[in-house]
Amino acid sequence: MNTRVVLAARPDGAPTADDFRIETSPVPEPGDGELLLRTIYLSLDPYIRGRMGPGLVYRSLAAPMELGTVIPGGTVCEVVESRYPGISPGAVVLAGTGWQAYGVQPGAAVRLLDPDAAPVSTALGVLGVPGFTGYVGLNLIARPRPGETVVVAAASGAVGSMVAQLARMGGARAVGIAGGPEKTSWLREIGLDAVIDHREPGFDDALAAATPDGIDVYFENVGGHVLEAVIPRLNAGTRVPVCGLVSMYNGAPAEPRADLLPAFMSAILSRQITVQGFAYVPYVEAHQDEFLRQATEWVRSGAITYREQIVDGLESAPDAFIGILGGANFGKLLIKP
Amino acid sequence: MNTRVVLAARPDGAPTADDFRIETSPVPEPGDGELLLRTIYLSLDPYIRGRMGPGLVYRSLAAPMELGTVIPGGTVCEVVESRYPGISPGAVVLAGTGWQAYGVQPGAAVRLLDPDAAPVSTALGVLGVPGFTGYVGLNLIARPRPGETVVVAAASGAVGSMVAQLARMGGARAVGIAGGPEKTSWLREIGLDAVIDHREPGFDDALAAATPDGIDVYFENVGGHVLEAVIPRLNAGTRVPVCGLVSMYNGAPAEPRADLLPAFMSAILSRQITVQGFAYVPYVEAHQDEFLRQATEWVRSGAITYREQIVDGLESAPDAFIGILGGANFGKLLIKP
Repeated sequence: MNTRVVLAARPDGAPTADDFRIETSPVPEPGDGELLLRTIYLSLDPYIRGRMGPGLVYRSLAAPMELGTVIPGGTVCEVVESRYPGISPGAVVLAGTGWQAYGVQPGAAVRLLDPDAAPVSTALGVLGVPGFTGYVGLNLIARPRPGETVVVAAASGAVGSMVAQLARMGGARAVGIAGGPEKTSWLREIGLDAVIDHREPGFDDALAAATPDGIDVYFENVGGHVLEAVIPRLNAGTRVPVCGLVSMYNGAPAEPRADLLPAFMSAILSRQITVQGFAYVPYVEAHQDEFLRQATEWVRSGAITYREQIVDGLESAPDAFIGILGGANFGKLLIKP
Repeated sequence: MNTRVVLAARPDGAPTADDFRIETSPVPEPGDGELLLRTIYLSLDPYIRGRMGPGLVYRSLAAPMELGTVIPGGTVCEVVESRYPGISPGAVVLAGTGWQAYGVQPGAAVRLLDPDAAPVSTALGVLGVPGFTGYVGLNLIARPRPGETVVVAAASGAVGSMVAQLARMGGARAVGIAGGPEKTSWLREIGLDAVIDHREPGFDDALAAATPDGIDVYFENVGGHVLEAVIPRLNAGTRVPVCGLVSMYNGAPAEPRADLLPAFMSAILSRQITVQGFAYVPYVEAHQDEFLRQATEWVRSGAITYREQIVDGLESAPDAFIGILGGANFGKLLIKP
């Protein structure tokens, strides 16, 4: 039998366990040109919150998912049965079968993985969408020059840790922001120039001390109070690539507060700042091969370090996902069914 | 004697007449390499509000001006006396002598104007900083493709009218926003595809009707409720060049209201929008000559139309400037001392 996690209800604010339902159903049968896949690792990604219901990201590019359907997600799978020429049972592929133990996909929609090149789990993290997103945002959009200061929000995460290490490799001053002593210690170990805990009192002062020459690139994937603290430190000509806003996915803060948009627009104007929302998709064709070639070598040589947190059992996925939205994970969160 | 308008006090919110003082003083004497200049036209520019005191634009690139000094501003002047080889008395030059009848500048700091090429007043408007700013923002930064929809805030202004007409020339759908029937009528006359009055009730609905395919470029120089109305209409990949925020220069709205920053950041992320603050200065060396050559021809042929509002007397400058910040002017506002 197949185990599947489906959307039971649209979350209002933070999701709860009741918004998910775990079901069993027969293992699906592949049609012509399709593969039957068994999930080895499932990727949990915060942006999926936006697909669950009308949250703050109010006109997303992707349509909201239907109630009762499997929660979407990237997966690394073993091929159990193949009706696609050129892919045999036993092969390991990168797929998108979502929160379930077995799934069916067209053979043309998956990518074969080489387990000898790197651990296959990395295809969902450092060598997957998160790593490539960091590469696009930093090396193709922000393009820091040596000596510039790059501040990375959620720096211990799957995207942020790629960004921070790429910044350092390129000769920039890499400043990481993370929540809690475990994450900040790890970021210091992997060689960032400065690391700040946004949960500590005095966060603003620590940020100022860590960025004596201001900020030239702010890599944004958090929003909220981290963004607010960063705004006054942005230099003339700062680039702000935006690939996520995890603190906002469950909705805006409920307590009434001042409107920060005028001050943000003023900063953009008076300091000639560029704020650019992006997704990795338009960059795949021209840049994914160069990324995979380089990043595989960086991981092999240890030039790029990464963290994974592997949680057992699909039934743990809802709680783990709820935790991600509050920053409870440490590194790339994967479910092992 | 010289007449000068100096900053008497730093405005708190909107400037009042008391923040300015009109003085008389001896006509200055040019030193070696300098010119004595008589002001023919003085340009009043809203961004000068940011130099007068600590307003919303809280960390401007230009330092605040000193109390008691002449308010800065671009001028078109006649050379009265020259101690600079190559420029003779009677020549007309573009200078920056500010709000006064006579000023002294180094000969190397002015640009000779050809009164036969175009009316000299245009060097402060359609062929000056405002026109070039519009050219930079639209043709170098936003680069609309034919058929895209370009929405221009303050479209009857010196910057906006250049942007709207360039958009139309390039084959985009040009939608202008302005306040009041006089401005909107003029914008219809000069051939914009749609014109909307932001002071009319139903502004949001009118904007939706005027942008059936959404907005691909929003040229921002206003902020406030115009920006708020535009955000939900921005398409995936929209470019938002920001060269001014006239509605915010006197400070943020006093009444408490919701924080719009989260929704703005969400739109930037989910629709991959690029918001870019810019000033014309870094583009002068590479692009000002091409702009002047083309724009002089466009003005001569009538392909680009422009509006000027000329007010007599330096003593009228404070009131006229206060009016600009509330949108009371219509087209480029010039003072004729």
